[in-house]
Amino acid sequence: MTENDWSVPETDLFDRLRTAIETDADAVLATVVAVEGSAYRRPGAKMLVDADRGGAGSITAGCLEDEVRLLAEDVLEAGEPHVETWDLTGDDEIWGRGVGCNGVITVLLELVDDTLAPALDAVAGGTDVGVATVVGGDLPTGDRSVYRPDDGFGDAEGTGLPDWLTDRVEAPLADLVEDGKSETLTVEAEEGTVEVFLDGITAPPDLVVFGSGHDVGPVVELAKLVDFRVTVVAFRGAQALQERFPQADEVVSASPRDVADLREWDDDTYAVVMSHNFVDDRFTLAELLDTPVPYIGLMGPRDRFEEMREEFDEEGVEFSRDQLDRVHTPIGLDLGGDAPYQIAYSIVAELLAVANDRTPRHLSDRAGPIHDRVSLSTE
Amino acid sequence: MTENDWSVPETDLFDRLRTAIETDADAVLATVVAVEGSAYRRPGAKMLVDADRGGAGSITAGCLEDEVRLLAEDVLEAGEPHVETWDLTGDDEIWGRGVGCNGVITVLLELVDDTLAPALDAVAGGTDVGVATVVGGDLPTGDRSVYRPDDGFGDAEGTGLPDWLTDRVEAPLADLVEDGKSETLTVEAEEGTVEVFLDGITAPPDLVVFGSGHDVGPVVELAKLVDFRVTVVAFRGAQALQERFPQADEVVSASPRDVADLREWDDDTYAVVMSHNFVDDRFTLAELLDTPVPYIGLMGPRDRFEEMREEFDEEGVEFSRDQLDRVHTPIGLDLGGDAPYQIAYSIVAELLAVANDRTPRHLSDRAGPIHDRVSLSTE
Repeated sequence: MTENDWSVPETDLFDRLRTAIETDADAVLATVVAVEGSAYRRPGAKMLVDADRGGAGSITAGCLEDEVRLLAEDVLEAGEPHVETWDLTGDDEIWGRGVGCNGVITVLLELVDDTLAPALDAVAGGTDVGVATVVGGDLPTGDRSVYRPDDGFGDAEGTGLPDWLTDRVEAPLADLVEDGKSETLTVEAEEGTVEVFLDGITAPPDLVVFGSGHDVGPVVELAKLVDFRVTVVAFRGAQALQERFPQADEVVSASPRDVADLREWDDDTYAVVMSHNFVDDRFTLAELLDTPVPYIGLMGPRDRFEEMREEFDEEGVEFSRDQLDRVHTPIGLDLGGDAPYQIAYSIVAELLAVANDRTPRHLSDRAGPIHDRVSLSTE
Repeated sequence: MTENDWSVPETDLFDRLRTAIETDADAVLATVVAVEGSAYRRPGAKMLVDADRGGAGSITAGCLEDEVRLLAEDVLEAGEPHVETWDLTGDDEIWGRGVGCNGVITVLLELVDDTLAPALDAVAGGTDVGVATVVGGDLPTGDRSVYRPDDGFGDAEGTGLPDWLTDRVEAPLADLVEDGKSETLTVEAEEGTVEVFLDGITAPPDLVVFGSGHDVGPVVELAKLVDFRVTVVAFRGAQALQERFPQADEVVSASPRDVADLREWDDDTYAVVMSHNFVDDRFTLAELLDTPVPYIGLMGPRDRFEEMREEFDEEGVEFSRDQLDRVHTPIGLDLGGDAPYQIAYSIVAELLAVANDRTPRHLSDRAGPIHDRVSLSTE
């Protein structure tokens, strides 16, 4: 494991965590459970520390990672979870007022065990999930229950919290899962006072790329780095394609007329149409317009799309304004550049902006409060 | 060489081309010299084909690559350059009206030899360069001269074109180099009629990243993929840092007070300040404001920058509005996401937009003519 592995896509971190659980590895998971002041990462940020002090992920920008690694050894040895708070506020000219190197940050360190497995399995399967974990108070630190939007806490495996507590945290955790956010809540009840970390974990959005040209590879590679689950759909000559797109989660062969039936399409699935074949792209577009996907990026000039629309009209196929508004063509954000990686970069930038419901612009031009990632926690 | 190598960053392609020249490899360079109709790549796009039919780069999106590879074998065998035109227009439902699979595309195939070396060396050294190459008419195909903005054709090595021709193409080539564009020009003179491909090749812009935290790696990696030349500046603990940022072109150690003297700063150099240390970042910012860099991205919330400005004021250090307008903080485009790769993605997206002088927005929202990369050539 190289130093550089500390920065990995979130999906890679989750994969490694699953592997650590499956192989019963000696490893510690560190999770930011509370932040006061500005911070590089927010509550929910995770870091995996192996027994040999290697690992993956980053919970600050390198300010506390060394200390976390040392502490992880103690946790491994003791076999007990531990909550540590670092107070980096103050006027210290060297360490103060940085980003990620100031404020008060609280981290839960715990042995990697199968209590997280149901949550990780759900996320890998495309389901958002919530995890409620005791981080202080009258119940043992590390006790947890897993919450699924469909099932609540009821049928989830690994339930370890008493009903009086899950009843109290279910509503706020549902909201956090919806927003993909995490925070620590203090619950005061007859039965006791408990601090519970409520972790809303969002499943990666799906990206389906239609095409198998040389220009598809960079789109797959970049989308994977920013945590899309990527499927490549090739229309013909699909031999050995998995090899051609090694980063893709899945490579499938299909007919453009069967796109709607290819898989389940939902409002967290994004489609990029870049087969470079007019007829294939047109069939694909027509099929996608009848699905609930919120984004259809179409490679090519605007005229090409207009020509497709004229053919739909001629064939008597009608689409509503709402349906057509989801088509983005020319595809991508206007970042300039015309090399394959630069074109791919602008496509994936557009995917991120749409998936995160942002208006693409300079953050420095955005009025009002600063960016989420450096917002002041009210915790 | 895997299939996937066909899509490589432009800088990688140029590196491979230089290596092929230096090792006297049997290889063919294919360059798009003219395009009519919509196309995925523009004139100037290059593809390197090795003797074993491996190679790098992509001149369409996979529509013609196989044919180019076959033709490259003939060129290798014959030892002579060759110009081929593919006419993919027409109403053919299968191949017509695609992007990159239609229009008329003309490609120069030539043996890789040292006539391109001076141009590649100049670009690697940070200098924009122009190459004038005969692609038809009364002079031998493949004859070329290299043009440098400072020297003209005068002192350049590899000069192969007669003065009457270089005199005629110098002005248009100078414009193309300035714009980073390429096109084929027909020159009619007493001495003869010649078609000359004028290739404006832009040196990669420089990115200097100040910081050595875990969050720097993803910025370096993504910036390299979109063809920045990346230098990482670490302020302390700079041991083994090259290893930590394997993709960086250079990793150096410096003091924040010596930033201005660290290197030559010009208007094609972009700076990202992310040391996460307030004092280091403030010194760096003050130094950078006195250089001509067009972009200074500063990690952290807006308040942090305001605090730096107050300290400048208290110290009696004044900066003009023009100087301060180059500071982008919070850094990055508003794409959402808060994982390290997502933050890095928004930073590099902002770098691209600024370097290419674009207003970040959806291309589908851009009024007027379609994107450059799919514009109709007037050739």
